[in-house]
Amino acid sequence: MEADITNACMLYKDGKTICIDPSLPVFQLIGKKYTMFILGAIGNNNSRKNFNDIVKSIPGCSRTIIATRIKELIQAGMIRKCYSKILSYELTEFGYKTRKGIISFLAKLE
Amino acid sequence: MEADITNACMLYKDGKTICIDPSLPVFQLIGKKYTMFILGAIGNNNSRKNFNDIVKSIPGCSRTIIATRIKELIQAGMIRKCYSKILSYELTEFGYKTRKGIISFLAKLE
Repeated sequence: MEADITNACMLYKDGKTICIDPSLPVFQLIGKKYTMFILGAIGNNNSRKNFNDIVKSIPGCSRTIIATRIKELIQAGMIRKCYSKILSYELTEFGYKTRKGIISFLAKLE
Repeated sequence: MEADITNACMLYKDGKTICIDPSLPVFQLIGKKYTMFILGAIGNNNSRKNFNDIVKSIPGCSRTIIATRIKELIQAGMIRKCYSKILSYELTEFGYKTRKGIISFLAKLE
């Protein structure tokens, strides 16, 4: 049995309460164009991807918006820059969690 | 092993491909203020809630924004109106799926 919502929190199914508030900026960023594709592209093969890899993996995308979104993802702590021979990007631990969250969210919608 | 992202889809962990595109409007709506609280409030106790129940369950919320959000949730097919003695709202099947998706998303972030 679930209790009524209190203190701006949503009740978790096994009786555990999860606070919704901190996740709002995460959903806002996921709801922006290309965010999910970038997290998808970088996370696939668990590998680093450079800017051109990311652009190529998203047919018909805008390079400008991809560049903006990459900055926002870095700021949100989901991806980080790696400097080896060329600049590339990899998921942070939080980025991996978000990506897994998206996958399990999509699985529930099916 | 996961393949590279193609056709603007994200790869699912057991090799199944889930298309991301249709979920963008869902994430956009979830990223808006109060959406998750409304889905939380209506879903708790699996019961119908009227407008005042919803407002009371979200401390310090704006009645105007709640009203707008309810309209958007109806339009998105996540909640529907029920007329018994007074007007109340209940989750649709899609609304329940979205709510479950949010819960499993939040669980992955922990």
